[in-house]
Order: sequence, then C-alpha cells, then structure tokens
Amino acid sequence: MQAKTKDIAKFVNGELVGSGEVLIKGINGVNEAREGDLAFVLNPQRPELINSTKASCVVVPRNLKGDFDKPIIKVDNPSIAFSRIIDFAMPGRIPHPKGVHASAVIAKDALIGKNVGIGPYVVVESGASIGDNTAIYSFCYIGKNTNIGRGCIIYPNVTIREEVTIGNGVIVHPGSVIGSDGFGYDIQKDGTQVKIPQLGTVVIEDDVEIGSCVTIDRARFNKTVIGHGSKIDNLVQIAHNVIIGKDCVIAGQSGISGSSELGRNCILGGQVGVSDHVKIGNFVMAGAKTGIHKSYPDKTVLFGYPSKPIDKAREQIASLGLLPKLFERVRALEAKIKELEK
Amino acid sequence: MQAKTKDIAKFVNGELVGSGEVLIKGINGVNEAREGDLAFVLNPQRPELINSTKASCVVVPRNLKGDFDKPIIKVDNPSIAFSRIIDFAMPGRIPHPKGVHASAVIAKDALIGKNVGIGPYVVVESGASIGDNTAIYSFCYIGKNTNIGRGCIIYPNVTIREEVTIGNGVIVHPGSVIGSDGFGYDIQKDGTQVKIPQLGTVVIEDDVEIGSCVTIDRARFNKTVIGHGSKIDNLVQIAHNVIIGKDCVIAGQSGISGSSELGRNCILGGQVGVSDHVKIGNFVMAGAKTGIHKSYPDKTVLFGYPSKPIDKAREQIASLGLLPKLFERVRALEAKIKELEK
Amino acid sequence: MQAKTKDIAKFVNGELVGSGEVLIKGINGVNEAREGDLAFVLNPQRPELINSTKASCVVVPRNLKGDFDKPIIKVDNPSIAFSRIIDFAMPGRIPHPKGVHASAVIAKDALIGKNVGIGPYVVVESGASIGDNTAIYSFCYIGKNTNIGRGCIIYPNVTIREEVTIGNGVIVHPGSVIGSDGFGYDIQKDGTQVKIPQLGTVVIEDDVEIGSCVTIDRARFNKTVIGHGSKIDNLVQIAHNVIIGKDCVIAGQSGISGSSELGRNCILGGQVGVSDHVKIGNFVMAGAKTGIHKSYPDKTVLFGYPSKPIDKAREQIASLGLLPKLFERVRALEAKIKELEK
Repeated sequence: MQAKTKDIAKFVNGELVGSGEVLIKGINGVNEAREGDLAFVLNPQRPELINSTKASCVVVPRNLKGDFDKPIIKVDNPSIAFSRIIDFAMPGRIPHPKGVHASAVIAKDALIGKNVGIGPYVVVESGASIGDNTAIYSFCYIGKNTNIGRGCIIYPNVTIREEVTIGNGVIVHPGSVIGSDGFGYDIQKDGTQVKIPQLGTVVIEDDVEIGSCVTIDRARFNKTVIGHGSKIDNLVQIAHNVIIGKDCVIAGQSGISGSSELGRNCILGGQVGVSDHVKIGNFVMAGAKTGIHKSYPDKTVLFGYPSKPIDKAREQIASLGLLPKLFERVRALEAKIKELEK
Repeated sequence: MQAKTKDIAKFVNGELVGSGEVLIKGINGVNEAREGDLAFVLNPQRPELINSTKASCVVVPRNLKGDFDKPIIKVDNPSIAFSRIIDFAMPGRIPHPKGVHASAVIAKDALIGKNVGIGPYVVVESGASIGDNTAIYSFCYIGKNTNIGRGCIIYPNVTIREEVTIGNGVIVHPGSVIGSDGFGYDIQKDGTQVKIPQLGTVVIEDDVEIGSCVTIDRARFNKTVIGHGSKIDNLVQIAHNVIIGKDCVIAGQSGISGSSELGRNCILGGQVGVSDHVKIGNFVMAGAKTGIHKSYPDKTVLFGYPSKPIDKAREQIASLGLLPKLFERVRALEAKIKELEK
Repeated sequence: MQAKTKDIAKFVNGELVGSGEVLIKGINGVNEAREGDLAFVLNPQRPELINSTKASCVVVPRNLKGDFDKPIIKVDNPSIAFSRIIDFAMPGRIPHPKGVHASAVIAKDALIGKNVGIGPYVVVESGASIGDNTAIYSFCYIGKNTNIGRGCIIYPNVTIREEVTIGNGVIVHPGSVIGSDGFGYDIQKDGTQVKIPQLGTVVIEDDVEIGSCVTIDRARFNKTVIGHGSKIDNLVQIAHNVIIGKDCVIAGQSGISGSSELGRNCILGGQVGVSDHVKIGNFVMAGAKTGIHKSYPDKTVLFGYPSKPIDKAREQIASLGLLPKLFERVRALEAKIKELEK
C-alpha cells in the first residue's frame, strides 16, 4: 500500500483535517500501529487514542471533536470506511479459491454459477447449486439439492448436508456442520431409544456468518432458521427447529436447544445455554454462562444460572457475598435474645 | 408418496378408525401438516392435537381414546411406525454413498464388506475393516486396524484413528473425532508438561449415535467405552477412559472428564460437566449446566453448580430469591433488640 | 516386546531392586496390567500400588521407599522413562503418514522439509512451508504462507488458514481450526452488524499440543499466541488476540474471549470461561466451570460463577447449604421477639 492522506480521504468521502501529503504505507490497530500506518477509531468517546497512537493518520467518526497532533479523516461510518480501505489496499487479502479445481467431484446436474471458486477435493452432490462469486474451499461436502447463494465463502472441512438452503453473502468458517440430524429419540418402555427421523431442513438467510466447528441441526419437520445478518461464533450448537431472528450475535460455545426461538437483535455472551421450547423476545441480552430456562420478553437483560434479570442477579450476588456476615449477625441476635429472655 | 389410509394401516399392523379411502401424499408434523399429510401423535396425553392438526390422518398410540374428526390409525408404537412408514414412503431419503468411489484410497489389506458405500475422497488405512451395508461419506479417515461394524453411517469429515472398534448400526455425524489422544501430562518440577502416551483405544458399542463435532478420546491404557444404544449430541467431549453405560442420552456441549463412569439410562442435559474419576449410577438425570463434581447413586436427579439433588437445588434457588428480604428481616430484628435492650 | 528387567533398567539408567531375569512382554497401567507386563507408578505417595498390581515389574520414582514383592526399577523421572520405553518397545506405534502421497495438492513454491510425511488428500497452498520430520494427515488444509515447524503432527481434517506460524514439536488433533477470523462486528444504528476485517494472525509456539475440534481465531491486528509448551484439550475456544503464556493447561470445552491474557503455568478446568480483555497472572488455577469475569494476580486459585478465590467460593457454598436453616432461625427469633415485646 502506498497512498497519500488526501487520496485516502477522497476514496472514503471523508473530511481531511491536517496534512494531505502524509504517505501511508500500511493499516493497523491504534495500539499496534507504527509510523506510516493508517489507524481507525470507531468509538467517538475515545479521542485520546488519536494522540497516543503511533499511526500517521487516523480515520474517525464525523462528530468527533478536538485538536490532534496528526492528520485525521472524518467519515460517517469508520467501520465501513475501514472495510472499504482494506478491500482497496489489500485486494485478494484472503486467498480464496479461484476457478474450479480439476479434482472437485461435482455432480453433472449441479448448477455452478459464474466466477465460482472451488478448491481441490470438494464434493458437490446431485441437484446442488452454487451461486455466482461464491468460493468453496477444500474438503467441503455440499449435499444433494442443497442451494448456496451468491458471494458466499465456505472455508475448508465444512459439511452441508442435503436439501439445505444458504442465502447470499454467507460466510461459514472451517469445520462447521449444517443440516445434521436433530437429536430426537422416543424412549421405549425397556429404556431403549428409537431414533425419530428428522425430515426437515435448515435455512441460513443472507449475510449470516457462522464460526468454526459450529453445529446446526436440521428440523424434525419444517426448518431450523438462522435469520438475516445474524453472527454465530465458534463451537456454538443450534438444535433442531430453532429459529434465530435477524441480526443476532451469539458468542462462542453457546447452545440453543430444540424448538427455541430468539427474536431479533439478541446478544448472547459466551457459553450461554438456552433450554428447549422457550421464546426469547427481541433485543434480549444474556451475559456469559447464563442458563436461560424459560421465555423472556423483549429487551430483558439476563444473567445467572438459572437466568434472572440482571438487577436481580446482581442483588443476589451481592447478598451472597454478605451471607457469611449475616450468619454472624443472626448468631449475635440469638445470643442477645437468650440474655434478654433471662 | 401416494397411499390410501387403509393401505398405511395395513402396512403398520394398525387399527384404522374412520375412512380407509383418504389419499395420503406426504408425512409431516402435527403442527406443520397440511391436507393430504399423514401425522403422528406419540404422546397419548395430547389427543387434542388430532383435531387441531390439518393432517388428513393421524397415527396414534393403541390406548388413545376419543372421537376425532379424521381417520386415525392405532398402533402399539407410533414412533416405530413413524420410522417404518418413512423408510417405506421415502426410500433413499438420505442419499448415502453407494458403491466404492474410484477416488477412495483404501489399503490393499483393508476388508470391505458387501454393499458398502464409500464416497469420493475417503481414506481407509491398512488392516481396517468395514462391515456390510455401511456407508462412509467423503473426507472420512479410517485409521489402521480400526473395525467398523455392519449398517453404520459415517458422515463427512469424520476422523476415526487407529485400533478403534465401532459396533453395528452406529451413526457418526459430520466432523466428529474418535480415538484422539487422551489429555494427560505429567508436570515436571520446572513447570513443563511431559506427554503421557495414550496406549488404549475406544470401543463404540452397537446402535450408538454420535452427533456432530463430538470428541471421544482413546484411553491411556485399556479403553474408553460408549455403551450399547447410547445417544450423544453435538459438541460433546468424552475424555480418556470414560465408561458410558447402555442407553444413555447426553445432550449438546456436555463433557465427561477422564476415567469417570456413567451407569445405564442416564440422561444429561446440555452443557453438563462431569469431573474426573467420579462414578454415576444407573438412571441418573442431570439438568442443563449441572456441574457434577462427585459420585452419585442410582436414580439421583441432579441440578446446579456444584451439583446437588434437585430438591436441595430448588430449595437453595428459592432461598436465594428470598435472601434480600432476609437481610431486611434481620435488620428489623436488630433494631427491635436494640430497643428492647434499652 | 521381549526384554529382561535388567535390560530395561539399563536402558532407562535406572536402579534395579530385585531380579533382573524377569521377562517383560508388554506395557500397561498398574490397574490393567497382567503377568509379564511392565507398569509405572508416577506418584511416590502411592507405593501400595506396587504390591497390588499384577505387573511383573514396576518403574518408580528414585526416592520411593519400601520392600516390594516384585522387581522395581528406580528412575529420576518415571514419566520420561515411560515415554522412552514406549518409543523403544513400540516403534511406529502411531502409524503417521510416510512420504508424500501422490494425491496431495502441494503448491510449487511450498517448501517441504526432509522426511516429511503427507497423507492422501492434503492441500498445501502457495508459500507455505513444512519443517523436517513433520507428519500431515489426510484432509488437512495448510493455507498460503503458513509455516509449520519441525517434528509436528497434524492429524486429519485440520484447517490451518493463511499466514499462520506453527512452531516445532507441535501436535494438532483432528478437526481443529487455526487462524479463522476473529468474531468482531461493529453494530450500526439500524441494528445490523458490519464485519471488522481480521488482519492479524496466530502464532503457536514450540511443543504446544492442541486437542480435537479446537478453534483458535486470528487476531484483528497483530497476533493470537499460544505460549511454549502449553496444552489445550478438546473443543476449547481461543478468541482473537488472546495471549496464552508458557506451559498452561486448558481442559476441555473452556473458552477464552477476545484480547484476554493468561500468564504462564495457568491451569483451567473443564468448561471454564474467561471474559474478554481480562489479564490472568502466572500460576493461576480455576476449577471446572468457573466464569472468570475480571483480572486476577499470580497464584490465585479460583472457583465459581462468577469467579471468586476458592476460599470465598467454599464459604459461600457452605453458607448456601445452611441457608434454609438460617431462615428457620430468623423465624424463631422473630417469634421470640414478638413474645418479648409483649
């Protein structure tokens, strides 16, 4: 990368404050940056980072005030500007497969779009379709009649079983599994389990991102759904018939049990568990390791095991800390009463 | 699918109540069903579902009573009838690999049974054996001297290391790992860890089902065992030398630490943890997220972190909810005593 | 294996007490051993195991005292002696790939060291390097410019993305993912998430062992680091920019959130969670399922959710057990006060 600050400002439709002649050679974090780097401050409440960073220019939110010791570029949305500059300055930064490798085993009736990249050792089964500009890495299995949209990235070692639908712009990180059987058995009188066939499927809507080693089971009937724009971190478990709304964020190692629903814009911290058949409203947040055992309305903020609204959880945690002293206080009261009774 | 209700009743040895001439075109859940569908009610305590479903015929338990607005078929075991009808009406529903794909790398001395399906890009090492009617999907690795029984399904991207034994009728979902080294080190005086060789193996007994991205470690000596008919959900961790009894059900993201034992017919909820070297009896149940740190006898029902019998856990949870009020009550007592002391 | 006790003693520089003419035919655990086996007692506090085992000879720590009914071999470090004898008696015990299989797709400019084993269906991208004596199993993907050191073992179905650095003597078990994107989004006013590019990488230092289905994300900038000699169990999540010190041990299903740091020689039990941006000192230990939400200094021993020092955690657990009785005691006090007030 080699660009002057004035050219970068122009590229992102930004307002340059300070010299336009500074030469930028790289992009880095505010803490990691060195001279010649461009950095970004996404949070307008941290202007002090601009003077402390060693970067030679900083992209900041439009409404950020103050005087700084280096050129800044004000933009409406620094995170979008960041992505645009990265794409511009580091084209092909992630070396996705290009073209269809000769070793890929692709069924004759599979539909492969334009500009699709398929790496070595990929299997695409009969009736599957891959949309334009999608990249599929090595050791991915795309099952029969599964449809993958446009502009998706499917990283190595991903399994997507039959009859699954993946929207446009979806990213699936390595090792994930989509469309495996739901975990359903009917217990017999003799204690053995009879497997319940899982006839449904999975629908991943547009712009969803799925982390590494995530497991998303197909529905018993109907479908398991990951809503538009939702982001799922590594090692998350999504059971059969779960419905996740739009724009949810689910952190690592969380699990959602069968037939539960999350509304839109919910945020689950790491290692959260959601019981089966519960219904979580919109804009609900749950702290790390929360065990959600029942339904909650919109905008609830949860913590604890079992889950409770955060204020109640905090009160309980504080009470617990004072509990040993409470025992002492009760002992003191008992002694005093004994004396008074005499 | 195209069948009359009388023919379906005959096929499952069921008792038809109502018209035998209704044409069935599909199978669906009671909630999802539309006209022309066959549905199933497994639970005799929910007869109201039969009138509310849009299905045109419902298969029900033999002992279910009542009058219904549509034909019903009474059978001894609706879940088994369900599976049989699915198999009959949707033959080849899951498109398992058929034949041995030319790209599979199979050692010359590996034994491949009759009617085995091996997909593209499978590796079967020397001395391994695959039983009749087993299907192995793409990107599976079957290690040296590993034996897989008859009628198994091994989904894509599964790794089964050397010297492992898999019984008959076992299903392993994508991305799972069987036979990786147990996690054992000997800490030296300088704080470094020396790896303890893991010389044992893993035995998966008949009719076990293993979810996606499950990890089952080989024993240090001897063997890690998953007992006959047990069902293991996604992302479960089974450490070295663990012994799981018959017909256990272990829900997603649970983990069982080294050398612990579960008896038969145990049920663990999601995200349960079991410490190392504990012994859990038969028919033990543990609620989601329970942290089992010690041994428990047969039929204990557990909850909480640390684990306790469910009654005690409930009592504690209730007490905790009342704790802030208890503080107030003690404060009131202290004030009264002060007055009395005057 | 066929060796006399005197020869084994010589091989490990050990002091033989008892007959040197006993023939050893196998190696086994103290509990599993049969006549003719060699066993090991690593813990000098368990001398009783030597008489109770059926093994014909036991390797023990140098300082172990007592008379025993069978020959023993005293060594400075039984765990290292154990590994050495295993390597000697069972050469090629684990059948790693040898040579480079013709089906491997290796970029022309990738550097492959001496005596490297690459199994069938491995992909090594442009600019990658594989050090001497390293073995890479089937279905592994080694990304562009990724460097893997000497003497490593990469088991099947592992994905290592571009620009990652793996040191010498590293073991990665099946299904693990190294270098996937960190989980970072910038939430927009309309509730949608914009992906933050993850420009950094991952460095795995020498002698690290990584379990099965472990996920280690690349840094946003800079690097995620797993320190020298650290051991990571199955299904662990390491988020972007995490720094793990030397010789840490992290048990199964634990997760460490973004930008957190662990010092050296930390031990985390199973299913532990560490919040983002916290700093854990050296020699810190955390019991299973601990939820670490803040920073802690060196040598803290932690337990509980939320985490607290173990003494405090034990006190709280004990108090909780007595809580129902405390309610009774307060009720009794209230009754007595009422009487006194009359």
